Amino acid sequence: MPTDASEIYRRYLSAVMLHGHAGARAVDLGATDLYALNILDLTGPLTPGELGARTGLTTGPTTRLVDRLEKAGYVRRAADPADRRKVIVEPVGRPGGLDRALDPARRRIAALLGGYTPEQLTVLFDYFTRAAEAYRESAEELQDGPGKSA
Amino acid sequence: MPTDASEIYRRYLSAVMLHGHAGARAVDLGATDLYALNILDLTGPLTPGELGARTGLTTGPTTRLVDRLEKAGYVRRAADPADRRKVIVEPVGRPGGLDRALDPARRRIAALLGGYTPEQLTVLFDYFTRAAEAYRESAEELQDGPGKSA
Repeated sequence: MPTDASEIYRRYLSAVMLHGHAGARAVDLGATDLYALNILDLTGPLTPGELGARTGLTTGPTTRLVDRLEKAGYVRRAADPADRRKVIVEPVGRPGGLDRALDPARRRIAALLGGYTPEQLTVLFDYFTRAAEAYRESAEELQDGPGKSA
Repeated sequence: MPTDASEIYRRYLSAVMLHGHAGARAVDLGATDLYALNILDLTGPLTPGELGARTGLTTGPTTRLVDRLEKAGYVRRAADPADRRKVIVEPVGRPGGLDRALDPARRRIAALLGGYTPEQLTVLFDYFTRAAEAYRESAEELQDGPGKSA
């Protein structure tokens, strides 16, 4: 590991976050909207109450958040298959604007990955898979922590 | 590359973003505050005007953002060494609360990285270094894009 490993890693994480925010901003998605989309991406459909608890919003702001995301085509409200009286919020994909905003980074990362050997790519994708799990678990602990549930 | 490579990668990025947001929220940092810290982390000191332009905030909200971050110990206002009449906003580190919030993920990632061979770590850190540059460049393009400068 390089001696400045933690500095390299910290700058890498900052760059990933910065790019995500800049992409969202370019298509007029607020930072909390982006947070909500990332939650739905990783956990799948949630009730509005669950989504509000995760994002830290009360009922009114959560309703407006879901309205905004639904209108822009990122989510839809549907009846919960397990209980038709309940509404769930489902992610439905990435409309063109956000895709276009994120495309230059995607092309750069694809070109970068294309320069590695198959063995090296196996290492990288092993890391992506395991790190995603580590971050997801850590995020859930933070979201469920004391005083943070709704 | 695995056949579901882009899906693995997308989930990985979502998990990184989700964790960053959950960590910020756990210490009552807003999503825009976190965005501003990531910008300062990567670009170094900026004038309040530059920071406002990057985050998309007007003068009043930018002043309040810098006040909030300064009070919480993340940044300080200083005289620009190049022009003492100008104020710049400098990042000054990570106060204890945010560090503690991010610590469980750091420990998980350190344990994960500890399981790779030196050769594999060289590949991973090569990727982190180059990907950081790719995301930073892409974010700058988005921030400087048409209609997005202040």
